[in-house]
Amino acid sequence: MKKVVIAYSGGLDTSYCAKYLSKEENFEVHAVSVNTGGFSAEEIEKIGNNAQKIGAASYTNIDAVATFYQKVVKYLIYGNVLKNNTYPLSVSAERIIQAIEIVNYAKEIGAEYIAHGSTGAGNDQVRFDLIFQTLAPGIKIITPIRDKQLSRQEEIEYLKAQGVEMNWEKAKYSVNKGLWGTSVGGAETLTSTQPLPETAYPSQLIEKEPQQVVLTFLKGELTAVNGKENLPEKNIEILENIASKYAIGRDIHVGDTIIGIKGRVGFEAAAALIIIKGHHLLEKHTLSKWQLQHKDYLANWYGTHLHEGQYLDPVMRNIEAFLENSQEQVTGDVFVTLHPYRFVLDGADSKFDLMNSSFGNYGEENKAWTATDAKGFIKILSNSGKIYQHVKNNQ
Amino acid sequence: MKKVVIAYSGGLDTSYCAKYLSKEENFEVHAVSVNTGGFSAEEIEKIGNNAQKIGAASYTNIDAVATFYQKVVKYLIYGNVLKNNTYPLSVSAERIIQAIEIVNYAKEIGAEYIAHGSTGAGNDQVRFDLIFQTLAPGIKIITPIRDKQLSRQEEIEYLKAQGVEMNWEKAKYSVNKGLWGTSVGGAETLTSTQPLPETAYPSQLIEKEPQQVVLTFLKGELTAVNGKENLPEKNIEILENIASKYAIGRDIHVGDTIIGIKGRVGFEAAAALIIIKGHHLLEKHTLSKWQLQHKDYLANWYGTHLHEGQYLDPVMRNIEAFLENSQEQVTGDVFVTLHPYRFVLDGADSKFDLMNSSFGNYGEENKAWTATDAKGFIKILSNSGKIYQHVKNNQ
Amino acid sequence: MKKVVIAYSGGLDTSYCAKYLSKEENFEVHAVSVNTGGFSAEEIEKIGNNAQKIGAASYTNIDAVATFYQKVVKYLIYGNVLKNNTYPLSVSAERIIQAIEIVNYAKEIGAEYIAHGSTGAGNDQVRFDLIFQTLAPGIKIITPIRDKQLSRQEEIEYLKAQGVEMNWEKAKYSVNKGLWGTSVGGAETLTSTQPLPETAYPSQLIEKEPQQVVLTFLKGELTAVNGKENLPEKNIEILENIASKYAIGRDIHVGDTIIGIKGRVGFEAAAALIIIKGHHLLEKHTLSKWQLQHKDYLANWYGTHLHEGQYLDPVMRNIEAFLENSQEQVTGDVFVTLHPYRFVLDGADSKFDLMNSSFGNYGEENKAWTATDAKGFIKILSNSGKIYQHVKNNQ
Amino acid sequence: MKKVVIAYSGGLDTSYCAKYLSKEENFEVHAVSVNTGGFSAEEIEKIGNNAQKIGAASYTNIDAVATFYQKVVKYLIYGNVLKNNTYPLSVSAERIIQAIEIVNYAKEIGAEYIAHGSTGAGNDQVRFDLIFQTLAPGIKIITPIRDKQLSRQEEIEYLKAQGVEMNWEKAKYSVNKGLWGTSVGGAETLTSTQPLPETAYPSQLIEKEPQQVVLTFLKGELTAVNGKENLPEKNIEILENIASKYAIGRDIHVGDTIIGIKGRVGFEAAAALIIIKGHHLLEKHTLSKWQLQHKDYLANWYGTHLHEGQYLDPVMRNIEAFLENSQEQVTGDVFVTLHPYRFVLDGADSKFDLMNSSFGNYGEENKAWTATDAKGFIKILSNSGKIYQHVKNNQ
Repeated sequence: MKKVVIAYSGGLDTSYCAKYLSKEENFEVHAVSVNTGGFSAEEIEKIGNNAQKIGAASYTNIDAVATFYQKVVKYLIYGNVLKNNTYPLSVSAERIIQAIEIVNYAKEIGAEYIAHGSTGAGNDQVRFDLIFQTLAPGIKIITPIRDKQLSRQEEIEYLKAQGVEMNWEKAKYSVNKGLWGTSVGGAETLTSTQPLPETAYPSQLIEKEPQQVVLTFLKGELTAVNGKENLPEKNIEILENIASKYAIGRDIHVGDTIIGIKGRVGFEAAAALIIIKGHHLLEKHTLSKWQLQHKDYLANWYGTHLHEGQYLDPVMRNIEAFLENSQEQVTGDVFVTLHPYRFVLDGADSKFDLMNSSFGNYGEENKAWTATDAKGFIKILSNSGKIYQHVKNNQ
Repeated sequence: MKKVVIAYSGGLDTSYCAKYLSKEENFEVHAVSVNTGGFSAEEIEKIGNNAQKIGAASYTNIDAVATFYQKVVKYLIYGNVLKNNTYPLSVSAERIIQAIEIVNYAKEIGAEYIAHGSTGAGNDQVRFDLIFQTLAPGIKIITPIRDKQLSRQEEIEYLKAQGVEMNWEKAKYSVNKGLWGTSVGGAETLTSTQPLPETAYPSQLIEKEPQQVVLTFLKGELTAVNGKENLPEKNIEILENIASKYAIGRDIHVGDTIIGIKGRVGFEAAAALIIIKGHHLLEKHTLSKWQLQHKDYLANWYGTHLHEGQYLDPVMRNIEAFLENSQEQVTGDVFVTLHPYRFVLDGADSKFDLMNSSFGNYGEENKAWTATDAKGFIKILSNSGKIYQHVKNNQ
Repeated sequence: MKKVVIAYSGGLDTSYCAKYLSKEENFEVHAVSVNTGGFSAEEIEKIGNNAQKIGAASYTNIDAVATFYQKVVKYLIYGNVLKNNTYPLSVSAERIIQAIEIVNYAKEIGAEYIAHGSTGAGNDQVRFDLIFQTLAPGIKIITPIRDKQLSRQEEIEYLKAQGVEMNWEKAKYSVNKGLWGTSVGGAETLTSTQPLPETAYPSQLIEKEPQQVVLTFLKGELTAVNGKENLPEKNIEILENIASKYAIGRDIHVGDTIIGIKGRVGFEAAAALIIIKGHHLLEKHTLSKWQLQHKDYLANWYGTHLHEGQYLDPVMRNIEAFLENSQEQVTGDVFVTLHPYRFVLDGADSKFDLMNSSFGNYGEENKAWTATDAKGFIKILSNSGKIYQHVKNNQ
Repeated sequence: MKKVVIAYSGGLDTSYCAKYLSKEENFEVHAVSVNTGGFSAEEIEKIGNNAQKIGAASYTNIDAVATFYQKVVKYLIYGNVLKNNTYPLSVSAERIIQAIEIVNYAKEIGAEYIAHGSTGAGNDQVRFDLIFQTLAPGIKIITPIRDKQLSRQEEIEYLKAQGVEMNWEKAKYSVNKGLWGTSVGGAETLTSTQPLPETAYPSQLIEKEPQQVVLTFLKGELTAVNGKENLPEKNIEILENIASKYAIGRDIHVGDTIIGIKGRVGFEAAAALIIIKGHHLLEKHTLSKWQLQHKDYLANWYGTHLHEGQYLDPVMRNIEAFLENSQEQVTGDVFVTLHPYRFVLDGADSKFDLMNSSFGNYGEENKAWTATDAKGFIKILSNSGKIYQHVKNNQ
């Protein structure tokens, strides 16, 4: 019997696929979900139950939170990556790791097919197919949703006819939760003009009293929150728990998809935004001007390539080497005050702080040089401009 | 008698310089201030009065608001320029225009000297000296504050001895206001760890009820606020009046100075931040992926060069040509809701919106292509990765 | 009767397509060739004759040399564009203009179809299809060679059966000639290790005596060769006639195709290489450091986008605006000595030369500044490094 | 007695400085030369003799060839660095290592002063002072040539008066030789229009028969020439010996100096140019498109920062990490044919070659995809352009 591994979420689309493949196409269907930080134990159990109901030969949940952090999130923090200066790439980043885990699983159990439930109108199909084909060119990819373009009603009816009855009521908003943020899509995000309503966001404002949080970074990694040490991926969760109560980190991403159309999606990512902004502040104090400049160039491309599914391009390893190397002195505490819907960076404290008053105080006092030095500096700095004007004016 | 033009603010430092130059160095002192949006009529009158008190031969205020907008601010908006992703370059941008206006004025009245009150520890000395030397290599520059490093007390006593008595009480915070924002320095900004207190900011929270504002852009320029047309520089002021009541746009800039030390300065720039973010949103809808990519590269350098006083480098004109050309279709309305201390971009409406549902809806529906097209696309896109893995794995 | 415009070269593949479409698919076939500098009058006549022989309803040659120069080549010169630092994009650039001319012609005569003879293994299919679909989404594209993957023998036999007998003997090297260079492919270029033999290149070494040539540029355009003024596109031909006798400008381009595989192709482009290198030298004398820096970034991307068929992306117009603006002072003479197989840039003479001895002579003499100025300059320049070391060493 | 370490070349300028400092300023003068590949044993002996004649307390030659290769040249090869696309940074790169060695030596022997013979008109003063000040802020820098601006005649007469008589006849061309190339300055390079005469170059054409050379790279390093293994720095010398007989690698560099004026200098660098071009060819076969793209960006900046004396900026270490990481598969043979004054890259052979015919042959044959795939690819690729045109045309 032909084995297929299906990327299974427990929802209508992938349930339809699973049933369809076993029933109509005679596949042995192995359902797998990959947790990159979005699933609670209850949700995993529910997904497993659904897999059973639709008659999957097996169901496996792969816990990939630590992998996700080590392989991707870490570098997004090093690079302060915000796509189009807004979006922490929450979903794009997860998909890559999910695809890698799934293809590895498929190889492990000797499956010749992988199925997924992506449509033909989004980025996920590209991310999944690219990774699958690249890492396992011999495995065939099956995508019933993309191929058949069925309506939800048709899927429900098919499942019903097969004796599968579950509550498929469509949520008003499609929500995708993970370690690095939650995306939210709905009727409004299909327009260019409408914001998401308050209620569309999973995290609601609970806490109104401002509080200060201390983030401790060691070589660019978040090693403690409020002085309490933990693994970085755990600290992201801890911070998310604190900050999401303030409804922080909501925004709408508008961007170019891999397939050439523009897309718009809401998100909330309290921890991601606070960490990126806090980390960036620490870097402003501890990195040289040229480190900030070139890191920015590379990190933006890192984000773009990741977003477009190019995680396996060897240039990504090269960029990671640069980013890792750049974090040598990005160590210290960052002070952040949380308010409803926003946060304020109060300051940073680092033994590697390059803002060092023993040399001078900006605008106030020069200890390491004299007025004569400064005048000489500017004199030489003006050479090229003077020559340009001289040449231009003497025509 | 030797003529000197002094960049005059009416404050202690430049009053000391003016008096010192006329009295001790026998100069005919012509005081000039350049208004780039920060001065009210009362302030200009007060500066003039002070100039008279210290015995200036003349005082002139140059209104450069429109020039400032046309020569610099316009391009900062086209480029969505935020230095280190934070600071709209409020002061850096002004200084350039002030320097150009002053040197032109000096040439006009045949002055052989220009004096300014900058210290040897900041960026302004570089911006002023660079522009002066480049545009008028024959004019000599005099900088008593930089050269003599006097204390405030010494300056006050000198002026007193000359019969000039004014209220020189030092403000707790040094504030520099202009069309494109207000900078705020104080004891806290000399540390890395302390935020500015609420009271340090000139604009205080007055308005608490959220309100929506509509910004209308025509080819990248802000031509109307809430449907009311005006010159763009006027619209910036109008928006500032509305938004500053919400205490929006406060932050602290940490950055590398031209002279190699790190500096930290607070600012409030409600209009600048709302316009830049609103304009950027409109661009995300109306520009191609590659326009956004390359514009970003150039605009960041535009900001850096401007910040570092390189406004006269011919590359700045080349970048301006690119930026201007890129704005052809950046036309439409942006909807922004103001809240205390923050604002939300609700959406954008443009006839040039490239998010166009007649081709497809992101993630939902593909109208302009088929599943087969998408699969072919990804197949080809995976070629390079497949070859790389094949080559790598076959060693 | 359905009208099809076919991009017709007179060769076997497009002759087969034309015959096949009229005979088997009942099309009214309109053959069109676009001359971007490669065709002599005799060749055009021959193409026309072939078109007649295979029974085309019409044949038209479009002279696009001036258009090619104005729309593309000019900017490649402004940008000193050499793909992978080697290839002047001879063919890539032509294809774009050919595609635009063909689609315009098709619209003009009301054709609903365009056919071309590209295979499925190269870049040209992408360039043609992209331009056709973008400018005329309603016109359908027909590509029999790509679709049917016939052998040359099968094509010849089909044509023979239709009564078309011509000499279809395959040249040992496939040569594509145009204003901006000639590409040469053969058995060797399908390997990574073999160079093309001397005889594979269309231009052979005829002239052995070195001679100096003077190139006159006006705002970046080649307005005269050896003092004789002509239109720039004419000057390119004149220079090519002189320099190709020296067998100058041969090399092999190895690069990434749009479809993800690596490709290798020989070329000769004497005029293109001499002009680009001469123009670049003139720019080194007349542009500021930052103009050279940022021009390079943009020009490389201009070349890459052009190569990949993205000529119609609006960012290309933005880049052209930058490049055009940057050429304001790129005016002067460049002296080049031609030798067999190589050329030497002797020097450049420009009234805008920024290497100006009234300020100083590099390494020898400083007229515009003093030793004190230089020491002050370096003192300040060392600030950031000193602080970095201080902080690093004090842990 | 105050100790000074002088960067000593044995020439007139540094001999004058040494004598002057010991005689007039009462220094204990320690002469040191740093060999970065330019000095023969005889030259070192001669420098030592001169040091003795002028009465230096000690003379030391530091052999820094291996250090030079490991710390700088290696990365210039990884990055294919040619400043302004022409100059391999021969001298700029050496100066950095020389400065570091000198400052380390000064610390070692407890000197409180370092002297060097640079003028105030060049780059070397900046490179030396920057490195000295940054690594040893407590050591004072003495530069008599820069400060006193003496003529050669004055220096000779001073030395004569002190009893030092040597043959100080000025060479017509000032030549600086090192592992990575030789710079040549003279009357012609002070003009913009004159080339250097044939005789100005140290290496003259000796060999006229073409010969093929095989360069073997292992992870980007030149590990063998013509199949014979050696240390990379030794291989550079071996190749230089072979190729300089062909008078290969001559050119003139025109560029912006750190002090803002333009400079022009001749050079010959046969080995450097052949290695860089050969290495680049190997990379075109073994690196991905995006590796080539981003490597280029970083490598150009690496060259610029190095040229401008910023070797100690931490960003240089970050870039080195990227470059090193990128060389993982840059392994294989490159075939180069040497001709008088030029060389031809024949091809490359690598087990990591990504030009792999099992997937397809460029332009000829597609094995890994179908015509349908290609059409789907281009269809999707045209989405953004189609939407843009649709939106633009529907106003």
